[in-house]
Amino acid sequence: MSSAAKKLINDVKDTVTEFIEGIVETYPNLQYLDGFPEVKVVLRADISRGTYEKVAVISGGGSGHEPAHAGFVGAGMLTAAICGDIFTSPTAHSILAGIRAVTGPQGCLLIVTNYTGDRLNFGLAAEQAKSEGYKVEMVIVGEDCALPPPRGIAGRRGLAGTILVNKVAGAAAEAGLPLADVAAEAIRAAQMVGTMGVALSVCTIPGQVTSDRLGPGKMELGLGIHGEPGAAVADLQPVEVIVSHVLKQILSKEPQYIPTKRGSRVALLVNGLGATPLMELMIVAGKAVAQLQLDHGLAVERVYTGSLMTSLDMAGFSLSVMKVDSTILPRLDAHTKAPSWPVGVDGPRPATTIPVPMATHSVESKEAPCRPQDLTVQGRVLEVAIKAGAEELIKLKDTLNEWDGKIGDGDCGTTMCKGAIAILEDMKNLYPLNDATETVNEIGVTLRRVMGGTSGVLYDIFCKAAYAKLKESTSSSIPPTQWAAALDAGVAAVSKYGGAVAGYRTMLDALIPASLVLQERLASGDDPLIAFVVSSEAASTGAESTKNMEAQAGRSTYVPGDVLSCVPDPGAKAAAAWYGAVANAIADYYQKIL
Amino acid sequence: MSSAAKKLINDVKDTVTEFIEGIVETYPNLQYLDGFPEVKVVLRADISRGTYEKVAVISGGGSGHEPAHAGFVGAGMLTAAICGDIFTSPTAHSILAGIRAVTGPQGCLLIVTNYTGDRLNFGLAAEQAKSEGYKVEMVIVGEDCALPPPRGIAGRRGLAGTILVNKVAGAAAEAGLPLADVAAEAIRAAQMVGTMGVALSVCTIPGQVTSDRLGPGKMELGLGIHGEPGAAVADLQPVEVIVSHVLKQILSKEPQYIPTKRGSRVALLVNGLGATPLMELMIVAGKAVAQLQLDHGLAVERVYTGSLMTSLDMAGFSLSVMKVDSTILPRLDAHTKAPSWPVGVDGPRPATTIPVPMATHSVESKEAPCRPQDLTVQGRVLEVAIKAGAEELIKLKDTLNEWDGKIGDGDCGTTMCKGAIAILEDMKNLYPLNDATETVNEIGVTLRRVMGGTSGVLYDIFCKAAYAKLKESTSSSIPPTQWAAALDAGVAAVSKYGGAVAGYRTMLDALIPASLVLQERLASGDDPLIAFVVSSEAASTGAESTKNMEAQAGRSTYVPGDVLSCVPDPGAKAAAAWYGAVANAIADYYQKIL
Repeated sequence: MSSAAKKLINDVKDTVTEFIEGIVETYPNLQYLDGFPEVKVVLRADISRGTYEKVAVISGGGSGHEPAHAGFVGAGMLTAAICGDIFTSPTAHSILAGIRAVTGPQGCLLIVTNYTGDRLNFGLAAEQAKSEGYKVEMVIVGEDCALPPPRGIAGRRGLAGTILVNKVAGAAAEAGLPLADVAAEAIRAAQMVGTMGVALSVCTIPGQVTSDRLGPGKMELGLGIHGEPGAAVADLQPVEVIVSHVLKQILSKEPQYIPTKRGSRVALLVNGLGATPLMELMIVAGKAVAQLQLDHGLAVERVYTGSLMTSLDMAGFSLSVMKVDSTILPRLDAHTKAPSWPVGVDGPRPATTIPVPMATHSVESKEAPCRPQDLTVQGRVLEVAIKAGAEELIKLKDTLNEWDGKIGDGDCGTTMCKGAIAILEDMKNLYPLNDATETVNEIGVTLRRVMGGTSGVLYDIFCKAAYAKLKESTSSSIPPTQWAAALDAGVAAVSKYGGAVAGYRTMLDALIPASLVLQERLASGDDPLIAFVVSSEAASTGAESTKNMEAQAGRSTYVPGDVLSCVPDPGAKAAAAWYGAVANAIADYYQKIL
Repeated sequence: MSSAAKKLINDVKDTVTEFIEGIVETYPNLQYLDGFPEVKVVLRADISRGTYEKVAVISGGGSGHEPAHAGFVGAGMLTAAICGDIFTSPTAHSILAGIRAVTGPQGCLLIVTNYTGDRLNFGLAAEQAKSEGYKVEMVIVGEDCALPPPRGIAGRRGLAGTILVNKVAGAAAEAGLPLADVAAEAIRAAQMVGTMGVALSVCTIPGQVTSDRLGPGKMELGLGIHGEPGAAVADLQPVEVIVSHVLKQILSKEPQYIPTKRGSRVALLVNGLGATPLMELMIVAGKAVAQLQLDHGLAVERVYTGSLMTSLDMAGFSLSVMKVDSTILPRLDAHTKAPSWPVGVDGPRPATTIPVPMATHSVESKEAPCRPQDLTVQGRVLEVAIKAGAEELIKLKDTLNEWDGKIGDGDCGTTMCKGAIAILEDMKNLYPLNDATETVNEIGVTLRRVMGGTSGVLYDIFCKAAYAKLKESTSSSIPPTQWAAALDAGVAAVSKYGGAVAGYRTMLDALIPASLVLQERLASGDDPLIAFVVSSEAASTGAESTKNMEAQAGRSTYVPGDVLSCVPDPGAKAAAAWYGAVANAIADYYQKIL
């Protein structure tokens, strides 16, 4: 449990006041009463004393449950939040200060979780405020479903469902309702919600030693939010089993905590307890919605997922189910400026999936690639060129591996050879060789499939970018300048996405000089075949020059310079090799047939 | 580390898909492509394929950073988020599906964090999309300030600052800018932000064993967000020291990661890494704002505090500082429907504290309470009554303790006696005895101060409620019916806030019958003194009858019934005792003087 005890706090006694200083720095619509350390009240920045023309809604309690309640202060929800020390009720003095600060002629509603300390301190403050002439009502929320209703008054604890009650009351007040009506809506909302929690770890109270009562592989069901033990300890179960247990308890018929029946509409709150990541809460939410709908026959109208009422750094969650109707739902949906109230949750809830889109138009209707029965001249040239390039790489396998063994992980030759063999294989059936553009694209697909890793993707990027450039050509036979432009596009894409430039000791140190020379020679009017062969010599020279380069990318970045200076970059040598083989094979072919 | 490994997931391979199912249940504005398990794309529910008339902004990467990036999908921010497996780049196939689903004639911008896998897969998808006719631009974000700029292309990692870049680009796209301009704003935003992280614990990758490399009392500085070790390990320091170190690194002059100088305006992002509660993040925010302003001379325009780009369940935080100006700030402030973008953060940032309000009007100007020089008749009656009640409790101390010892913690007599002694003491100097109303209030203050605990607060609530009722009387001498109404108000308040009713075996079992009888007798025209004495007999009978009650509240809830049946509730007996003593003393006094 070593890490759980590490906290970003200083002196324990300053924890809550420093939290408040941070929250008002974050949210300019919030401010606090200058009464630290005892008076810890966060309130709306837009309310000046005694003038608020609506019913003020005030909640609060011990701290350690952030963002509850300070994060729910804002127009449309709480007017003020009274913060006690960690897991300790605020004093009546502090509560009274909050009442005085925000309550206007319409009075205020105190919404209090059902803990003795909170009831009494808020109660005392309420009575004091009344004696000062304020209109005050108080509503107590106790919606815990972990234990059967007790005989006495210790009663059900107030848990995360309180947030939903606060929202309903805050929206009612914002709508301009008088105090009695706001209180009535809060009481009704409190009767419509049930909550139960599950803890995977205990929380660490600042300055205290973490309890080790919860062992590996165990969880607590029906926990409180103050580190108090849960109602039962059980083995950790798959998420849907835990969720099923919790929902059955909340929705049990005896006792019937909330008045739902099949077909009832509900809102669901999936509340994180502090140290459970959103990913896990969302997984819980997905399971809970499905079960509420399928197993319990309820219509889930709204889902709120987030860490809204936490228990310091406890791992786990609670589920709250609130029965909603045409009165409550608009209150939950009403806009609020409270920064921690979930946004983007309003309904209606449409279908959640759409089909994966295929490629559009021409590409979509394209048939699976296939080698043509008869090859055109250009098709035969392409076949010869590809064969030459691939066979050259197969020949070089051991040499490339040897170089790579000195400066990398020694598999460059193997990887290249694997790609080359696959190309030769796919060419037999798949490559539409009479269509050079599509064939280039298919070569990329082959390479990515069999080479894997960075080099496979980079070669596919090279082919894809070249392919896009070749497609711009409208003539049936691709002119040499278009091939040069395609080479340039491929090089640019590898540089852009891979992040290397000339001199970084990569395959680009072969291909960049080749591309530049090819374009120069074509521009100056050279015979395209000669230009191609000459550019392949530039590739070879470039690859050889990598011996003198420091590694800036990929495999050799961590290899000392004196080791590097003995060997060329195998990726550059491989690129120069296939490029040269292709250039020479094409030149030879045309010499033969012309 | 036992608890850290416990997660709310099922099969590891389903983690991300189950997360996506949950997030679309929570947010009706989101949907996903039906291509699980490979295609994991979350997109806006309001966009139909090929028709989006603005630039689509797409981000994504490995999962495990929730809410990034799926939680930032919404009008005004991301159009789609591409989710890889945990800490693994999404495939180009999945990215391409996302591009096809949301990109319209204006094209799309891909915003990619600077990791090789993300660069290559997004790059490949971009090239493929271009070959299909889409307009695509890609911007790479690498704003990590933990390590000096490297020689090569591994470069700076993309961290939480990416969220801010996404927001700027999303707002620019929403404003209707063309692709080139949206990309330019994204590039500029990426140049203006720097980030550095601090980890207090390592994260646990689902299905793997948690590393124990980070020992007790240690933290890692300059961490990545994939469980990779930080740049340095250090002893855990006070929050402001950690914050100071991180800010100095981000704002260092050599290398100058972001182009700030004294007086520059900045936005601050305090990002939680997954398992750090909001309370701690807010403490960090408070410290960071103060230091940015005072130590670095920067104007902090906006503060975003929350767990926006996490690293599974890692404890810790990162700070991102972005230089803002009149171009960037409106983009950050622009409304978005993305559910996880912080709300309530827009400026301006006003003063954050206001004075604690004192009581208003009459109460405010009231002098400190003081015993009058000369007592009126009513003042003398009050003195006699209070003295009698207090002395009766002092006499009963041992008896009350004895009863309480059998069914509670044995200190009821001691507590009551303490209150009684303090009342007698305060009466000498403090109680304004000629003003019965204010005297009742002061008695409550005395009792709460010295008795402490639940009983002190309950008696103060009793007095406060009675006081408020007495204040309604306008005559100088309080009529008996008003006293009866005050008793009733006190009883009602104790019941309301304490939660007990008749029969719960509490002091109310003496006071409720007393109050009822008093009101009945007065209503039927009895002499008030007789009515008072008769009601005190009802109190006594009521207290005695608690022997036959099961405990429902407070001290005796856990005591077996056969033990309880031997003893009355000491709280009820104490209440009956002081009430009877007061009634008889007043009756005696008036008999003497009349």
